[in-house]
Amino acid sequence: MDDDTATEILKATYRVLCVHGYADLTLERIADEADRSKASIYHHYDSKEGLLIEFLDFLYDQYTAQLLSIDGGTPREQLYALLDTVLTDEDAGPDQEIRIALLEVKAQAPYNDALQTQLASFDEVLFDRLREIIAAGIEMGEFDATVKPAAAADFLVTAITGAHTRRVAVGYSSEKLYEMITRYAERQLFADEPSEAAH
Amino acid sequence: MDDDTATEILKATYRVLCVHGYADLTLERIADEADRSKASIYHHYDSKEGLLIEFLDFLYDQYTAQLLSIDGGTPREQLYALLDTVLTDEDAGPDQEIRIALLEVKAQAPYNDALQTQLASFDEVLFDRLREIIAAGIEMGEFDATVKPAAAADFLVTAITGAHTRRVAVGYSSEKLYEMITRYAERQLFADEPSEAAH
Repeated sequence: MDDDTATEILKATYRVLCVHGYADLTLERIADEADRSKASIYHHYDSKEGLLIEFLDFLYDQYTAQLLSIDGGTPREQLYALLDTVLTDEDAGPDQEIRIALLEVKAQAPYNDALQTQLASFDEVLFDRLREIIAAGIEMGEFDATVKPAAAADFLVTAITGAHTRRVAVGYSSEKLYEMITRYAERQLFADEPSEAAH
Repeated sequence: MDDDTATEILKATYRVLCVHGYADLTLERIADEADRSKASIYHHYDSKEGLLIEFLDFLYDQYTAQLLSIDGGTPREQLYALLDTVLTDEDAGPDQEIRIALLEVKAQAPYNDALQTQLASFDEVLFDRLREIIAAGIEMGEFDATVKPAAAADFLVTAITGAHTRRVAVGYSSEKLYEMITRYAERQLFADEPSEAAH
């Protein structure tokens, strides 16, 4: 399969996941969406699971590129840009729809080691980028010097993950979740307001 | 249907969800598990969705009772007890299995208003209990007086939700997640260490 065909199939997978969710993702639907024969899809992917793994690789590359593209400005500006990238969305936009599908996928992880390993790589790249930004902020004196970058980054990954889940499960507004988490960062990480916790 | 029959069906639903997950929950499997005829289940529930709503009511009552039973000791002790209740589990125990099934259910919420309303009630009862404990801790001088109970409780619900999702999606240890969140509470909420954030 040439690269264009592969990319077209993965883009079709994205659209099918947005519309039907993971439970109703089928190779037939992807074939229809990509305007290809079912046989041509089966020729390259032996199962829905195999395609999902490939699809998550594709999404991971995009996600990593997005996180790495946040490199202008001060660490504080980078942290805001990162939180904006990972937390905000348009209500009816594809971001929110793919997040719903990803939450379904996350619930499958305990039954599938390859899937859990891949989801862990999304978790890790977010953690790494946050740790780098926090460490740089401390180095430059913009962040509170007593903050431990790894512990703070890990806690932020947990809070961001919780924001994504509450967004889907209880329909919590993404703007309010963004405010909640930036407020935490402002009060806990930045050097000028280091002691006002959760206020 | 008498109460015993209803409870037996709901307990069977719990066991089927733990073993098969939500995607593979069927009224047939519940009938087998409850040792009843499929017709007797269909007599009371017209669909898998109807049974799920009833099941979540049953789970909500248990969850509320569990959260309300935390009432001894000081607010700080109550907060630890609450975090222990909602965050720790035995690796192979039913708690973890039902949480996996609940994550699947959460991914269905955007497509089902009744479901999202019910999931919001779980979110709210946790928020209310946390806010009460934090407000009592401030009143008694055990918690930092500058903490805002509602904002701190809301942020904690987000972090706890994130801990549940990371536990399932990437297999993060529940003990480490418990430590991460209690460390946040210790450093941010308690009056004796109010200014050491995420360290």
